Amino acid sequence: MEIAHPYLLFLGDVPDALAAKTAIGIVDWRKDWCLGQVRLQGCAADTGLPDMKIAEGAAAGAKTMIIGAVNAGGRLPDHWVASVIEALDSGMDVASGLHVRLGDIPAIREAAERNGRSLHDVRHNDMTFATGKGTKRQGKRILAVGTDCSVGKKYTALAMDRAMNERGYNSTFCATGQTGVFISGRGVALDAVVADFISGAAEWISPETEAENWQIIEGQGSLFHPSFAGVTLGLLHGSQPDGFIVCHEPTRTKMRGVETPLPTIQQVIDMTIQCGRLTNPDIRCIGIAVNTAALDKDEALAFLAKVGEKHGLPATDPVRFGMDAIVDKVSAEFGAP
Amino acid sequence: MEIAHPYLLFLGDVPDALAAKTAIGIVDWRKDWCLGQVRLQGCAADTGLPDMKIAEGAAAGAKTMIIGAVNAGGRLPDHWVASVIEALDSGMDVASGLHVRLGDIPAIREAAERNGRSLHDVRHNDMTFATGKGTKRQGKRILAVGTDCSVGKKYTALAMDRAMNERGYNSTFCATGQTGVFISGRGVALDAVVADFISGAAEWISPETEAENWQIIEGQGSLFHPSFAGVTLGLLHGSQPDGFIVCHEPTRTKMRGVETPLPTIQQVIDMTIQCGRLTNPDIRCIGIAVNTAALDKDEALAFLAKVGEKHGLPATDPVRFGMDAIVDKVSAEFGAP
Repeated sequence: MEIAHPYLLFLGDVPDALAAKTAIGIVDWRKDWCLGQVRLQGCAADTGLPDMKIAEGAAAGAKTMIIGAVNAGGRLPDHWVASVIEALDSGMDVASGLHVRLGDIPAIREAAERNGRSLHDVRHNDMTFATGKGTKRQGKRILAVGTDCSVGKKYTALAMDRAMNERGYNSTFCATGQTGVFISGRGVALDAVVADFISGAAEWISPETEAENWQIIEGQGSLFHPSFAGVTLGLLHGSQPDGFIVCHEPTRTKMRGVETPLPTIQQVIDMTIQCGRLTNPDIRCIGIAVNTAALDKDEALAFLAKVGEKHGLPATDPVRFGMDAIVDKVSAEFGAP
Repeated sequence: MEIAHPYLLFLGDVPDALAAKTAIGIVDWRKDWCLGQVRLQGCAADTGLPDMKIAEGAAAGAKTMIIGAVNAGGRLPDHWVASVIEALDSGMDVASGLHVRLGDIPAIREAAERNGRSLHDVRHNDMTFATGKGTKRQGKRILAVGTDCSVGKKYTALAMDRAMNERGYNSTFCATGQTGVFISGRGVALDAVVADFISGAAEWISPETEAENWQIIEGQGSLFHPSFAGVTLGLLHGSQPDGFIVCHEPTRTKMRGVETPLPTIQQVIDMTIQCGRLTNPDIRCIGIAVNTAALDKDEALAFLAKVGEKHGLPATDPVRFGMDAIVDKVSAEFGAP
């Protein structure tokens, strides 16, 4: 799937920043591809990009409007449809990470056909996967896992990939979610794959590579999230990681969207090792990545020091303090590049 | 989905009985709905039904030909297509549990349209599910789990449902696979659901019911199978069982289709409890169901006695020795009907 940039990011009228994490993630890693954001009245998210009307984005040269916000269940609210049609009528392609296919909405399909534009649904693909085999593949792999959804697994994997490359490792980011696909231009939205092929798709996402190469694989969900743990387990088995990083958000009290209590970091480490051994007996935790956005700097540093000491692992906030501590751990455990 | 009977069962030319488990399962539970079997040259499976040509089945009054055999990956071999078309031209509907949609094959679609017949793809459905919520639902639930795929989980659940009803409980079998849907006329093939909705679909399959009612839920895969564990975990979380039965095949040395070694029954019990507590803190193992087909009767009884004693649980072969021992356990743990 090839998605043309520059991008115009559509945020709709979502009620919080988490719901716009697709757009925010794109801006974090590909700001130079983004011209502006389109927000409807009542939108509580902000990427920091200039606000634009769709016509202004088109005039500025945007090639694709990306629906950079999601609502529960991945549906497209009726009142967003007009904006999608306006973008198509302005000459842009439209890309979406929603569960619904843009082309399944007749007015959108007609507008795309009328204007000769493309609709990209990154959660959908027509690829066929084999079922997972579970056999060891050459190359080294790191998977981001989490105590919950939306705790920074994608960000952590992207930051780790960048830090690994800066330190001289040959590393590739492997996308498993829609934002990751927008950022990397490749990958599969794993939660949209037919259930029988989750681990097979994960094997395809992180294929055999040179022995000295590293793949840094975006995580999905949590083994402790009652909605999505199946995806998480299939990804763990398919990606057969040598090392994993536990991602955590310290102010969360319940799993996102449900009433289930949050697991501890130690529970996640133990369960990930226990399950991950099925396809990689040498799996180990190599660090903890904490989203400390809700803490001031001293609180954040104190929290990271406490967590790191408790688990005997490097603990960092990828956004604030970088990934060097965890790359050091990779070097100590697996050797210098 | 309504599938008209009597059935004619198509076995193709599959190389072993396991590959025809759909047909064999239908015969085990709905023999009175089945007129005969259609086998191509080289077929090594046998349901025990009379062999028929398709024309003979049609003449005998078959309303639906069911493709009762699967090959790896769920594809429809090219040389089976002619048989499907012949059935449609003979006036039958055709139902399939393969991953591929019958209607995606143009010659089949044309034959169905030409004859005004229906194509049923029980692995596919156009239903929309919510994501799993993980909240407790009224009613009592039993899930069949396994040390591997194809170790008798469906059979065990059907036998348990029948035994529960015979003993005065109000019990319903809940199908999660294609054969189960053929047998019960309802349910969802869970492995075909989009990954994000596995546990949500499992919640739909076993909905809230009267407090004294029981749902006996067909299991899928194994938490220790590297191809399918994600489906297994989502089903476990969504079905929030009060009790589970571990299904096992004692002569198996590797997980079916892969090189992964088989887990022990104790590993399956421990991991199922550990994971299942997320949505039902009171989850417990209520019995062990062993497929002893490869053992003679004395060996089977000795094996069951040994396994039962080792785990402090009733152990039986549902086919040979019935489910009374496990219904007794239900009565002891949860009360008489």
